[in-house]
Amino acid sequence: MDEFMQAAIEEAQQGLREGGIPIGSVLVHKGKILGRGHNRRVQAGSVVLHGEMDALEHAGRQPASVYRDCTLYTTLSPCPMCSGAILLYGIPRVVIGENQSFLGEEALLRLRGVQVEVLQDSTCIALMARFMADSPELWNEDIGE
Amino acid sequence: MDEFMQAAIEEAQQGLREGGIPIGSVLVHKGKILGRGHNRRVQAGSVVLHGEMDALEHAGRQPASVYRDCTLYTTLSPCPMCSGAILLYGIPRVVIGENQSFLGEEALLRLRGVQVEVLQDSTCIALMARFMADSPELWNEDIGE
Repeated sequence: MDEFMQAAIEEAQQGLREGGIPIGSVLVHKGKILGRGHNRRVQAGSVVLHGEMDALEHAGRQPASVYRDCTLYTTLSPCPMCSGAILLYGIPRVVIGENQSFLGEEALLRLRGVQVEVLQDSTCIALMARFMADSPELWNEDIGE
Repeated sequence: MDEFMQAAIEEAQQGLREGGIPIGSVLVHKGKILGRGHNRRVQAGSVVLHGEMDALEHAGRQPASVYRDCTLYTTLSPCPMCSGAILLYGIPRVVIGENQSFLGEEALLRLRGVQVEVLQDSTCIALMARFMADSPELWNEDIGE
């Protein structure tokens, strides 16, 4: 297991322990984690802090030149908002744990030149499958079925 | 002037008074403002709280059924991240103050069925023109020229 995807999974697991949605992410620049985070919908009542957004937020204000050398790791295929953030900041590469539970805007990212890799990692798949079975009302709350 | 665009402009002006980037937004549901906000990059060191995101955040956790009856007002054409949030939450209508200073993902929004109206409001244009002339280093910090 790639150490950065492992870190994203640890973030997702931390979110689950907090009673939250188990999606984690890390932003990596030249082999170093700049920011890590997990979905804060439940914990902070946030509708903008998905895992990827939380990682970007914790990385803080970075110049365009840094984003252009970054890879974003996320346990789940990035939704339209998080994909938009990837495009906004010109992050050139995204490594995705899995896209079986939810398929985000991977096609749009690829169309815009982002390198997208999907691992279909069994730990990521199991985390989401269990969460969606245990908490369907939370998973469907904001964007519906 | 539409009262909701006026509220978005007041948010942008508040942001300017705080030393921030003057972009404001309000989320409106059936004639009532659910959330209002402005860009918090400078004030909170936030890379995710653009004006539109701040308005969504302040509206709090809403069910999908509410978003589907909302209009988002924003003083400036929404960037990829904010456009992605609009798509994520299925907000069907966006009213934009102007897109001369910056053209966001209006084409993508329209392609996905969002009703997009651009006012080319002179107050919105003047706010951004002055800010971009006065603070080019701040405007160009994150996504470059």
